[in-house]
Amino acid sequence: MKKIELSKRQETILEIVKRKGPITGEQIAEQLSLTRATLRPDLAILTMAGFLDARPRVGYFYSGKKNADLFGESLRKLRVRDYKSVPTVIEETSSAYDAVVTLFTEDVGTLIVVRSGQLVGVVSRKDLLKVAIGGNDIHKVPVSLVMTRTPNVVTVDVDASLYDAAVLMMRHEVDSLPVVRDSGNEVVGRVSKTTITRAFVELGQYRDV
Amino acid sequence: MKKIELSKRQETILEIVKRKGPITGEQIAEQLSLTRATLRPDLAILTMAGFLDARPRVGYFYSGKKNADLFGESLRKLRVRDYKSVPTVIEETSSAYDAVVTLFTEDVGTLIVVRSGQLVGVVSRKDLLKVAIGGNDIHKVPVSLVMTRTPNVVTVDVDASLYDAAVLMMRHEVDSLPVVRDSGNEVVGRVSKTTITRAFVELGQYRDV
Repeated sequence: MKKIELSKRQETILEIVKRKGPITGEQIAEQLSLTRATLRPDLAILTMAGFLDARPRVGYFYSGKKNADLFGESLRKLRVRDYKSVPTVIEETSSAYDAVVTLFTEDVGTLIVVRSGQLVGVVSRKDLLKVAIGGNDIHKVPVSLVMTRTPNVVTVDVDASLYDAAVLMMRHEVDSLPVVRDSGNEVVGRVSKTTITRAFVELGQYRDV
Repeated sequence: MKKIELSKRQETILEIVKRKGPITGEQIAEQLSLTRATLRPDLAILTMAGFLDARPRVGYFYSGKKNADLFGESLRKLRVRDYKSVPTVIEETSSAYDAVVTLFTEDVGTLIVVRSGQLVGVVSRKDLLKVAIGGNDIHKVPVSLVMTRTPNVVTVDVDASLYDAAVLMMRHEVDSLPVVRDSGNEVVGRVSKTTITRAFVELGQYRDV
């Protein structure tokens, strides 16, 4: 975002409204010993940029938003619903070997393990690498022995924001999340750090003018 | 970012400046049969929001930036230099088994393979999982046989933007990039989709007011 540099007078107006709002334009003008007309551009800028809210017959009040926060607000509007990808699932009766093959054919880092379409766990490259070097016959090890199982699986609701999903992945140190409906076990998609990276690229794109 | 809704008159001013700029405030006022004073707030808003540039004694001209682009511009200012993490490296003479152990102890998805401190390749969980299930003795397989080797390794310069790094990871379908100096082979860090997710969370953070 282009950072809007406020003039000294605009900063002063902000301070006045913060302390005394709601306050009318006339009252602000009075405080500054200026005419209402002189202040009009400043008030327009402060309102349009979101620093102030104006309510007819009440006056101006401080919106509580800093300039920098307007950027975050826009980012937090991105929805999991609009960015999720198709879930890559495997049945819990599959072997660890099947899981490895599916990981490679689907080229994903994590598989969602289901029973009758309901989430029961997730299994990652890391889990499978661990069992593969453990000297076991991975054809015989069921994926259910290797996976992280519910309720220890971190999920995100389809109605959550992409920001919430990113926070969850960072906090729990996981690379992807099953997307569920109504915070239940019905899997409707997946979100990963790749999804976040894609959104980041989209936000940063040069736009046609 | 708070989207600034332009009024009809502001949109008209933008159109005039796009077609005829550089143009003075007086000339714009004339075109609209309004006084310069009436237009002052509109011109101030358009200039502060970055739609118009104003040059003394020349007049207004169109900045070529749409509102949405101001958001992207700010995102593209984040630098690899400020977000990179410590590179997790392994010597090219190590075994694939050593690489797996290092992956687990460092808890990273990819290792940077070096010879005398210079980048020679990268090795991922995926590469190691492939060799582990291949029936080889991974104690005897050197990591140099498993890795992706230069010049096929995608790197990013320490002076690049985080946006460039994200674009490279999406385009080449990799999860991380060695960060190098002067586009050479001296490794000074790493950037991954986790790095991008961390920056995304930072951008979206609720800020104190």
